[in-house]
Amino acid sequence: MIKVGIIGSTGYAGAELVRILYGHPEAEIVWYGSRSYVGTPFADIYGSMFKLVDEKCLDDDMDALADEADVIFTATPQGFLAEKISEEMLGKTKVIDLSADFRFKDAERYEAWYGIHHAAPQLLEEAVYGLPELNREKIKGARLIANPGCFPTCSILSCAPWVKNGAIDPDTLIIDAKSGTTGAGRGAKTPNLYCEVNETIRAYGITVHRHTPEIEDQLSVYAGRPVTVQFTPHLVPMNRGILVTAYAKLAKDISNEEAEAMLKEAYASEPFVRALPAGRPAETRYVKGSNFADVGFVLDKRTGRVVIMGAIDNVVKGAAGQAVQNMNIMFGLDETTGLMAAPMAF
Amino acid sequence: MIKVGIIGSTGYAGAELVRILYGHPEAEIVWYGSRSYVGTPFADIYGSMFKLVDEKCLDDDMDALADEADVIFTATPQGFLAEKISEEMLGKTKVIDLSADFRFKDAERYEAWYGIHHAAPQLLEEAVYGLPELNREKIKGARLIANPGCFPTCSILSCAPWVKNGAIDPDTLIIDAKSGTTGAGRGAKTPNLYCEVNETIRAYGITVHRHTPEIEDQLSVYAGRPVTVQFTPHLVPMNRGILVTAYAKLAKDISNEEAEAMLKEAYASEPFVRALPAGRPAETRYVKGSNFADVGFVLDKRTGRVVIMGAIDNVVKGAAGQAVQNMNIMFGLDETTGLMAAPMAF
Amino acid sequence: MIKVGIIGSTGYAGAELVRILYGHPEAEIVWYGSRSYVGTPFADIYGSMFKLVDEKCLDDDMDALADEADVIFTATPQGFLAEKISEEMLGKTKVIDLSADFRFKDAERYEAWYGIHHAAPQLLEEAVYGLPELNREKIKGARLIANPGCFPTCSILSCAPWVKNGAIDPDTLIIDAKSGTTGAGRGAKTPNLYCEVNETIRAYGITVHRHTPEIEDQLSVYAGRPVTVQFTPHLVPMNRGILVTAYAKLAKDISNEEAEAMLKEAYASEPFVRALPAGRPAETRYVKGSNFADVGFVLDKRTGRVVIMGAIDNVVKGAAGQAVQNMNIMFGLDETTGLMAAPMAF
Amino acid sequence: MIKVGIIGSTGYAGAELVRILYGHPEAEIVWYGSRSYVGTPFADIYGSMFKLVDEKCLDDDMDALADEADVIFTATPQGFLAEKISEEMLGKTKVIDLSADFRFKDAERYEAWYGIHHAAPQLLEEAVYGLPELNREKIKGARLIANPGCFPTCSILSCAPWVKNGAIDPDTLIIDAKSGTTGAGRGAKTPNLYCEVNETIRAYGITVHRHTPEIEDQLSVYAGRPVTVQFTPHLVPMNRGILVTAYAKLAKDISNEEAEAMLKEAYASEPFVRALPAGRPAETRYVKGSNFADVGFVLDKRTGRVVIMGAIDNVVKGAAGQAVQNMNIMFGLDETTGLMAAPMAF
Repeated sequence: MIKVGIIGSTGYAGAELVRILYGHPEAEIVWYGSRSYVGTPFADIYGSMFKLVDEKCLDDDMDALADEADVIFTATPQGFLAEKISEEMLGKTKVIDLSADFRFKDAERYEAWYGIHHAAPQLLEEAVYGLPELNREKIKGARLIANPGCFPTCSILSCAPWVKNGAIDPDTLIIDAKSGTTGAGRGAKTPNLYCEVNETIRAYGITVHRHTPEIEDQLSVYAGRPVTVQFTPHLVPMNRGILVTAYAKLAKDISNEEAEAMLKEAYASEPFVRALPAGRPAETRYVKGSNFADVGFVLDKRTGRVVIMGAIDNVVKGAAGQAVQNMNIMFGLDETTGLMAAPMAF
Repeated sequence: MIKVGIIGSTGYAGAELVRILYGHPEAEIVWYGSRSYVGTPFADIYGSMFKLVDEKCLDDDMDALADEADVIFTATPQGFLAEKISEEMLGKTKVIDLSADFRFKDAERYEAWYGIHHAAPQLLEEAVYGLPELNREKIKGARLIANPGCFPTCSILSCAPWVKNGAIDPDTLIIDAKSGTTGAGRGAKTPNLYCEVNETIRAYGITVHRHTPEIEDQLSVYAGRPVTVQFTPHLVPMNRGILVTAYAKLAKDISNEEAEAMLKEAYASEPFVRALPAGRPAETRYVKGSNFADVGFVLDKRTGRVVIMGAIDNVVKGAAGQAVQNMNIMFGLDETTGLMAAPMAF
Repeated sequence: MIKVGIIGSTGYAGAELVRILYGHPEAEIVWYGSRSYVGTPFADIYGSMFKLVDEKCLDDDMDALADEADVIFTATPQGFLAEKISEEMLGKTKVIDLSADFRFKDAERYEAWYGIHHAAPQLLEEAVYGLPELNREKIKGARLIANPGCFPTCSILSCAPWVKNGAIDPDTLIIDAKSGTTGAGRGAKTPNLYCEVNETIRAYGITVHRHTPEIEDQLSVYAGRPVTVQFTPHLVPMNRGILVTAYAKLAKDISNEEAEAMLKEAYASEPFVRALPAGRPAETRYVKGSNFADVGFVLDKRTGRVVIMGAIDNVVKGAAGQAVQNMNIMFGLDETTGLMAAPMAF
Repeated sequence: MIKVGIIGSTGYAGAELVRILYGHPEAEIVWYGSRSYVGTPFADIYGSMFKLVDEKCLDDDMDALADEADVIFTATPQGFLAEKISEEMLGKTKVIDLSADFRFKDAERYEAWYGIHHAAPQLLEEAVYGLPELNREKIKGARLIANPGCFPTCSILSCAPWVKNGAIDPDTLIIDAKSGTTGAGRGAKTPNLYCEVNETIRAYGITVHRHTPEIEDQLSVYAGRPVTVQFTPHLVPMNRGILVTAYAKLAKDISNEEAEAMLKEAYASEPFVRALPAGRPAETRYVKGSNFADVGFVLDKRTGRVVIMGAIDNVVKGAAGQAVQNMNIMFGLDETTGLMAAPMAF
């Protein structure tokens, strides 16, 4: 059994780790970290785990935890892990970080978009961006995984084949994303109250959202050159789900059949990416509660563009599920272990 | 023009006062009080009033306000008004209080259920419980109105005719109420976050909710003797609305026709209470955004009970609308002035 | 592998059977019956199962199916199975019926509440009411299971210990239930449209809902005498979940500790019923997507009543999950096989 | 009093006309047309109007209605009005059509996008596209108004100043729109059921939505040349509201101040268009229930684009409210009569 510690277990991503790992046959949680709830039974916060989890929440002492755990998941605010992490810690345990701290190779880029000093730039080179569909081989041997952001996961999986194959002009790429409200976190803030989110929709972080450079960095890998994208997220009155609707100028003549073949080939051996046939819209309900990413497209001959669509569950493939997928890879398990629950649909 | 001051204008009840008074031809707001947002334009908090309200939020200096306003609405936490109010203030302005401070005649009862010392018990006798359907004449000359609670308003209007006419045994009365989430207020608390309320339903304040004694006190007036009721509210994933489903043993043989006639007679001259025909369920959407209260019933010969139903919009007839109705009565206006907008339905 | 056929696989209960059985290690679906979608791939109706289920929908030929399947689930309209079932069919396969056809021992009672002639009254005696917590032993050897209704499942599990132990007067029992909208089915009816359900709450089937006699029949077993209950369901703007809030006069003096002990004892060996401590409200989100039933209570010394609460997921423990639980028992599997997914919480 | 007839009064746009006209001091409804509900009291369909509207629904005999009404609103399926309308009818009454029948000048364009033969092409030239902000003078004398579509209203008001002033390259314009579910109509269709819309988001009509050519035609007026746009609508789990997020390449250097000034000037004398300051996101809740359109923008120097935003209530400014605004203009009333209710906000 893999011994797992979670720092930040009572946020939405942390709690989803608990839910998923409860059904994982090869892992057990040994540390439910939650600074706000130290001493409170986890199941008092999440009644869903009543009688399933008996443990109380612990603090965020990662050094102590490193002695007990084979892997630590950090579902923590930006900057937390960079402050805490050390070479010694990485000598004892693996770390899968759900924050943005190690998603960039360049500390300045991180600091410019996040407005935080990076306290451990020496580890940026080693850290592996934990998108299995891109970096599976590197993940296998990694000590430190930067688990991708929710919007980047959905955006990259949707757009990468088009960029990689030169089917679109990447600099015309406009990504209009829609997210469920778990994406806003569990902090007690007025804008996230029920009556402030229900029955309305709004964009946020327009032109300045921090997931923008992350999307750009990874799509640049596929493009083989630096790429600039337009990215706008929206808050939708629903709990879970990200839908990406992306627009780009076609860079070559391509038919529905060719595009379908391109997607199929890109994801032929991927257990969690489902390439939809031409014209079939992606919908967030069809991936809800699961680790699947649905990607599709509609060609528009009239405008010379393609409309690319993608859907994931932001707390699963966009956070906790992908983190467990990375864990599976790192520990030599079948990558799908504990992750094959079918989507909820409703 | 009636000069109106609002203390607590950025909570949901306060903001609804602003919305309703914007359409009121005989009143103008001279003071947008909001301790949390002093100096911020009201329309920066509620973008709905952009270009409609230019004023900035002020503090809660009721003494200064009393010099400027003909009437003050206090949409404030329990205890606030009892601390601030004075004989001098009431000599200058009328006060309509949306908190519970003056809803009881007995300070001990208030203190027992609310756990707060009452700082102005000498005004309890004078204060008028502002349910126009019960106390219209007293409201006309009042200086201080205790605007009823949302659950009491719906419960009393639904059940009063049955109690008053001896059609039910009031001690068998069980009121199961369901409320939209504006009822929980605009405070930044985790349990009121979108993802904590959406896609779930739960009871709260079970056996101890503070609106219980208020319902009992007023139904006792109709019964002519002290009445004890069972009251349970539930939090529903919707913004507005209260639905009351009440159960009681029938105290006499009554037909659908007789019961319909009883309700019709009770509310024949009431502009805002709509008596539904036998068997027609009340629904919160049909009063949404309006000052109407819909009341109805189903007789159950099988069990010897009646199922009583009532629906209001908790922020209108359950708070701001009823407060304006009281203001209209106090200032000699037509009681429906500014309050006849049809319900939204959807 | 148990070969499973589903008649009515594209309704919500049927689709939930597909979802749950997808994760069941000992069962495989051999027949996706759906009269409305014969010839259409199941995954075209439920995109959630894209790439997971390749089969097309078939018709409802139960005779043909009986030759192929070890067990047939019928998630069909009332009256369907009673028309189709035969001694011959039961000689070949087991049947778990999610409709009401075989939930009563008395055909007249069925006909009075459902308004349908019962076409197979000769099987009523043999059919086993499939509530494992009540009838586990009988289920083991059964050929025909009447899977309980959603409201009865939640109501019975919540109230049974109180009735069985004589702690309440069952004739004072009032059950106020709240259901998510999957309970209304997938039929294309105007009242079930998004904009007719969203942002509102209403009671329905008041005094005449068909689950009333089912609740009464089963609670009568626990009471040892005929019981009459008041039952009112409400439609709540959420997809899944039933919350029961029940009220009854206490028949004896009982403390919180005694009541907790009573519930614990009643469900000590039940894998899916979680007895909450005194005062802790049940919430539907904490059972969402799972087969758990949470039951709890609040004693009210002031009124001499108990407020009983229960929560289930109406499509899992209230339909498909319980049906699979019954299948597990009938086929000698561990009862929890394929059913231990943790609740979603959000 | 203007005598008003409504054909299609029980659809969402029709019912909103009833709601708005109930509060209109200069108009009265003389005909509640609804083919599906002939003979049923309107308030039996919309309980919101209980005691407010006593009339029963009538059929769709426009010839009879033309003798009684000063103006007819047709909230009917595409093709209906073109079939029914005649020169004789327009000699007796004015017609405001909420369908698409007269929104195009070119019958072939209509037929190509709608797939319906146009039965009255001779009236296309005369019909006035009823966007007051564009065509106020023509509306004054019109006999036949083509009330704009909901997406076009929001898209055009948001983008027009940018197009008209040459601030963007219109051929790079990509409009990603999000709509509440009233936009899908009140027809009893499975995809519009509560559980099919709730907790999910999806695009529809991708590259082929019928509002595309309408947007193009009107923006072409502002551009002074034919314009092609990319348009994608999404279905959002909320009742009301349209949010437009549009992207375009800037055609000239423009500062926030200049852009704000441009919008202010464009809408300086418009009572219902509110130009938001730079950077302030539009939100649908802030226009809910009102006839306002909020328009705003964020400049992105990094990408050389502007992100344009607009929000309306799709059933008010996107349908019934704009229709009443047109009526007010046609009958010489103050344009805002009956339309100045403040937005609901929550």
